[in-house]
Amino acid sequence: MISFDLTDDQKHLHDRVRGFIQEKIIPLEEPGLPRQIDDAFRQELIALAKDAGLLSPHVPKAFGGMGLNHVDMSIAFMAAGYSLLGPVAMNCAAPDEGNMNLLYKVATDEQKERWLRPLAAGDARSCFAMTEPAPGAGSDPSLMQTTYRKDGNEFVISGRKWLITGAHGAGFAIIMARPESGEEGAATMFFADMDTAGIEIVRDVATVDRTFTGGHAEVEFKDVRVPESAILGEEGQGFRYAQVRLAPARLTHCMRWWGAAKRCHDIATDYARTRMAFGKSLMEHEGVGFLTADNEIDLHLSQLSIWHTAWTLDQGKRAGRESSLAKVACSEALDRVADRSQQILGGMGVSHDTVVAQIATEMRGFRIYDGPSEVHRWSLARRLARG
Amino acid sequence: MISFDLTDDQKHLHDRVRGFIQEKIIPLEEPGLPRQIDDAFRQELIALAKDAGLLSPHVPKAFGGMGLNHVDMSIAFMAAGYSLLGPVAMNCAAPDEGNMNLLYKVATDEQKERWLRPLAAGDARSCFAMTEPAPGAGSDPSLMQTTYRKDGNEFVISGRKWLITGAHGAGFAIIMARPESGEEGAATMFFADMDTAGIEIVRDVATVDRTFTGGHAEVEFKDVRVPESAILGEEGQGFRYAQVRLAPARLTHCMRWWGAAKRCHDIATDYARTRMAFGKSLMEHEGVGFLTADNEIDLHLSQLSIWHTAWTLDQGKRAGRESSLAKVACSEALDRVADRSQQILGGMGVSHDTVVAQIATEMRGFRIYDGPSEVHRWSLARRLARG
Amino acid sequence: MISFDLTDDQKHLHDRVRGFIQEKIIPLEEPGLPRQIDDAFRQELIALAKDAGLLSPHVPKAFGGMGLNHVDMSIAFMAAGYSLLGPVAMNCAAPDEGNMNLLYKVATDEQKERWLRPLAAGDARSCFAMTEPAPGAGSDPSLMQTTYRKDGNEFVISGRKWLITGAHGAGFAIIMARPESGEEGAATMFFADMDTAGIEIVRDVATVDRTFTGGHAEVEFKDVRVPESAILGEEGQGFRYAQVRLAPARLTHCMRWWGAAKRCHDIATDYARTRMAFGKSLMEHEGVGFLTADNEIDLHLSQLSIWHTAWTLDQGKRAGRESSLAKVACSEALDRVADRSQQILGGMGVSHDTVVAQIATEMRGFRIYDGPSEVHRWSLARRLARG
Amino acid sequence: MISFDLTDDQKHLHDRVRGFIQEKIIPLEEPGLPRQIDDAFRQELIALAKDAGLLSPHVPKAFGGMGLNHVDMSIAFMAAGYSLLGPVAMNCAAPDEGNMNLLYKVATDEQKERWLRPLAAGDARSCFAMTEPAPGAGSDPSLMQTTYRKDGNEFVISGRKWLITGAHGAGFAIIMARPESGEEGAATMFFADMDTAGIEIVRDVATVDRTFTGGHAEVEFKDVRVPESAILGEEGQGFRYAQVRLAPARLTHCMRWWGAAKRCHDIATDYARTRMAFGKSLMEHEGVGFLTADNEIDLHLSQLSIWHTAWTLDQGKRAGRESSLAKVACSEALDRVADRSQQILGGMGVSHDTVVAQIATEMRGFRIYDGPSEVHRWSLARRLARG
Repeated sequence: MISFDLTDDQKHLHDRVRGFIQEKIIPLEEPGLPRQIDDAFRQELIALAKDAGLLSPHVPKAFGGMGLNHVDMSIAFMAAGYSLLGPVAMNCAAPDEGNMNLLYKVATDEQKERWLRPLAAGDARSCFAMTEPAPGAGSDPSLMQTTYRKDGNEFVISGRKWLITGAHGAGFAIIMARPESGEEGAATMFFADMDTAGIEIVRDVATVDRTFTGGHAEVEFKDVRVPESAILGEEGQGFRYAQVRLAPARLTHCMRWWGAAKRCHDIATDYARTRMAFGKSLMEHEGVGFLTADNEIDLHLSQLSIWHTAWTLDQGKRAGRESSLAKVACSEALDRVADRSQQILGGMGVSHDTVVAQIATEMRGFRIYDGPSEVHRWSLARRLARG
Repeated sequence: MISFDLTDDQKHLHDRVRGFIQEKIIPLEEPGLPRQIDDAFRQELIALAKDAGLLSPHVPKAFGGMGLNHVDMSIAFMAAGYSLLGPVAMNCAAPDEGNMNLLYKVATDEQKERWLRPLAAGDARSCFAMTEPAPGAGSDPSLMQTTYRKDGNEFVISGRKWLITGAHGAGFAIIMARPESGEEGAATMFFADMDTAGIEIVRDVATVDRTFTGGHAEVEFKDVRVPESAILGEEGQGFRYAQVRLAPARLTHCMRWWGAAKRCHDIATDYARTRMAFGKSLMEHEGVGFLTADNEIDLHLSQLSIWHTAWTLDQGKRAGRESSLAKVACSEALDRVADRSQQILGGMGVSHDTVVAQIATEMRGFRIYDGPSEVHRWSLARRLARG
Repeated sequence: MISFDLTDDQKHLHDRVRGFIQEKIIPLEEPGLPRQIDDAFRQELIALAKDAGLLSPHVPKAFGGMGLNHVDMSIAFMAAGYSLLGPVAMNCAAPDEGNMNLLYKVATDEQKERWLRPLAAGDARSCFAMTEPAPGAGSDPSLMQTTYRKDGNEFVISGRKWLITGAHGAGFAIIMARPESGEEGAATMFFADMDTAGIEIVRDVATVDRTFTGGHAEVEFKDVRVPESAILGEEGQGFRYAQVRLAPARLTHCMRWWGAAKRCHDIATDYARTRMAFGKSLMEHEGVGFLTADNEIDLHLSQLSIWHTAWTLDQGKRAGRESSLAKVACSEALDRVADRSQQILGGMGVSHDTVVAQIATEMRGFRIYDGPSEVHRWSLARRLARG
Repeated sequence: MISFDLTDDQKHLHDRVRGFIQEKIIPLEEPGLPRQIDDAFRQELIALAKDAGLLSPHVPKAFGGMGLNHVDMSIAFMAAGYSLLGPVAMNCAAPDEGNMNLLYKVATDEQKERWLRPLAAGDARSCFAMTEPAPGAGSDPSLMQTTYRKDGNEFVISGRKWLITGAHGAGFAIIMARPESGEEGAATMFFADMDTAGIEIVRDVATVDRTFTGGHAEVEFKDVRVPESAILGEEGQGFRYAQVRLAPARLTHCMRWWGAAKRCHDIATDYARTRMAFGKSLMEHEGVGFLTADNEIDLHLSQLSIWHTAWTLDQGKRAGRESSLAKVACSEALDRVADRSQQILGGMGVSHDTVVAQIATEMRGFRIYDGPSEVHRWSLARRLARG
């Protein structure tokens, strides 16, 4: 039966996360030019969430998380995103959040103990090494250049990855590679400790965001040797697993950025209520009032889309169409919200006197990563073409 | 608990309406230049819905309707709107649908017997006489020029109304007027048979739509005398009742037009799947595929917004904010869907070889009536300003 | 040297056309539901322009026209478009205007005397038979199904054309056909009197517009025999000639519709200046003021784009890129102008109490005919891809 | 006579600037996280332009500039903007460029020698101290809080200014203040050396841009004493002078950002031509091709609008309407170009591996400074309201 009622538990969850962000996290936001989050600061944040009992909401309780389903995650993540530091503190930021989800679904029990448990506890970080520089795998993963070959009991991986989020400081990587002499369309995921011989961080890739712990790097894999046990799941299933990871990962981006966009809207609205111009508050100008109304519309529809997709996942469905649709709709709507908020703030909107400028700038990637809008539109069209 | 599950009853309702529209109504659509629906054709359509047990879904069973709540209405109306003739057949088109709702909520038992029962049965039609020519009441109802005065046991109403939908052929009018010497902000609603002395249809107002039975008219009220019992509800409560009528009325427009937009999308998609250009089907062109993807997004978000507002009304809330938001969002989104569908159809999209051109043309009013987008955006901003 | 100065002759031309439209043509516009323009009304209009010395601005003086270059045409056509009847009166409406241009550039002297002269004088009308029903030639002309074969001294044409504007009442058709057994990419244009045996108007295709004299028809060509002299230009050059016709034809659409959009803007602005709502004129509401500002921007940029393309054509260049660009930009911008004007007018904007509703409805085709926006965007991208 | 022909001199000017930017300036762009331009780097850049004879294109030759009119400036500035360092090198970046223009038009000969000459030579920098923190002067200059009073032969200025571009390192400020006890609407501009007692840079205001030499600062003026000769122009004319400064200043922003947007488009197009995805180059995907087509349209219309406004200024007109229109249209169009370019580049679009991310991020302010879009839309509407 169609319902939009939050249960008492959900309301309580919402209030707990909201209170945590307001009281513990927002005071840690520093004014001025945003700085790259490093591991020391991350550990400080993680400790706060652990104290508050809000670590790893998406991870099953058996592994130390809160064991939330997707709808409950949406409540927690949307509230967490209200500060860019929130998801870092609660250990539910990309790429770790998606990696934990992938490991829980695909890894063996032994692998879960070794790789998932420390991630879930916030003690370690991981990176997901899939994207490659041109002419390798980008939006089109079939172009993958990184290869592996069997050599005795080991696999030997060679290739170059790019824009690898969090590689600096990560404990391990999940590396996607295709067999050196293999058929097209087959790829395999491997675990590798980041200090394995042959793994080298070639350079930092400077980007417009600062909130991903460790930033983004270009990483070279030169004859990296891993044992048979390092295969995640089954050999040749890499692309399928990437999808397993991506559908919910897209959605959790929507959740976190929803919170950040809401923050922008609230800051802009507060400003518009008090800032005077031409004889009345900005808010009393239709030109500004309409911007806030459009923000309300975009936030509301994005929320409904997130809830619907989360609910679909909770029904045990893959939600490929729903998550593609939510990704396009939310990434574009929330970007508009941030942009309008900057506009309302005027000169302050491009300064770092509020977090709005940072959120607006960092959110730009959201329309690109985990499938740019164009890829998701095409995916929706292909589904429709099939009827 | 958040849920998007349709109950079995809802699925059954959906299938019944869908089947009715496909089998009984769509075959009656005539190709070519759209013609104004007249009362004879309306009666033919009404008879079909009566046979199918699908008359007046929104009216309580006690008055002969199906007694649906708002969520169930959304299911029935969205399916009905798939043909522009559907809501006429099922007796849930504007303005009668909104009038029935108003009467049920505000009229006395006696008034309900006299005015509501024949409406609900589809035997009579009504019109809602509120909008006036400049400088009278339009988006701003406080400019109302039509007045009434007490004369013995009677009220005497004078004024001119404009764009009165369905006045031609209506059995009665609900007339909004303000006291001749009264305070601002007070207005009263009166019933009057259309053949009451002093009521004259001055002219037909030609418009871009053809689907409102009886079209739209300019109506003069010259010393129209009605008894005390003709007051709908209480004297002086007219503006409040207008709001009672409008919040759900806005939403039912969204529901009906959703169905019409879905029809456009389906026709355009079918065409795109088979029409070849430049070596492949239109659908295989990204330029067209993206248009269909955007249609999917707009339809999906509109549906969620409709469901959410309907559910809010079913909780017994006024849903003023929700229905304003849904009105802006749906009217603009569904208009885009119709427009993109025309574009996909190419030359056929501006011909009447399909119903898409008619739907796209008629839907233009939806962004204007029952509050233009600008009024609803301002309403959303005012609520936000109050915090 | 970059200049936007109108010469005195250009100012005079502008004032003459503007005065003609205001004094002679606008008074002939009938209120109410728009009716199809027929040949009798057209002749009445033509006579007025002839009297005013404003017939066929685009035709060389040797053939009885005004002999204007493209920039001067832009001045005349933009002023003419201020009434939908203007271009009909001045004999510069589609498809005749484009056909005259094509004939002047490609036809033999003899053909010009026979076919062009009566067109230019406004005595005859013509149609351009290129578009076909699916699966024939639409946006992709290479799909053409209509064929011709040589039979002695004659050519025999067979096929079916669709959406043929002005076929009803036309004196002759220019028919595009490909050789029955010919190579792909070759097509030929033929003249044929409309009363030639084998030409049959199968049906009227009802569309959203009313202003094209004779409407649009589906026409069958059943073994239509024409002499060798009926070939326009050279055999096999049909597609090239279509391009010769199209680049300026696209631009003249922009000119005419610019005038119509300006009319909408002026009507809406006048209304907004006087109509009161919520204590001030509509124009004093930012929500409405911004709409008029956006209209000003769209009209201004469209005008510059038209002038630039016209100037490019006057330099003797083909202006393929410029006219594609202007077609996309103007068709979308002017459509927005008409749409915003409707919105400002509120309920009146969807009524036929002003011409705005008709203009907005009819303009919809402009984004589709002579190449839909998608085809022109792709054309721009292809040019860019070539570098 | 309408013309879009560049003279040979203009073509030569274009080629000179273009060559300078390509050969001397672009090689100095550093990859990676953008750094604030400081005075040392600025002097290095200035020296290059001086060598190339391209310093201060907008300044009359008598003061050491190139003495270009506005149309020629548009050619030089648009080419200069192709690198964010270009306008800095050519000494035509904001705020100095606008300040020089203001000084040339309003200052006395003596003031020009003292303040303009070193600016024009690139030896000094200046700042324009008008904007104030809330509740002071922002979009609405009438809210100005900074005051001055006469004290003997001196004026004493007190107040706080905010977002003062280039204050760090500037030789002098132009300070806008209103009389302490004066009538509303009157304000005066004063010169003051930045080392005058009482001027204190309170803090740096971190912003999203890095290209304004010296960044932006909050500056306190505490009983700052200046002589009578420090009044720029006449007392009480400050707001009028601000308009004198602003109309062309808005336009030169359009010119510079046009070049930057063109750079984005070129980088994205080059990438799209070679980067493969799903079996063909990105450019061969309609989804990407359409983005590049829209870039072409936006760049073309912006160029026409810039030329038209520049030409209007060259006719000796104030071009208030034209420059407002160009500001709204260009700032929004060029922002879209930068945004689409990021999207085409995918992950690279949010990295600093190209300058696109920086340009897109920095350009955000362009829709805000020198009048946000809302203020210019309202200004256009007010002009229209007056008829």
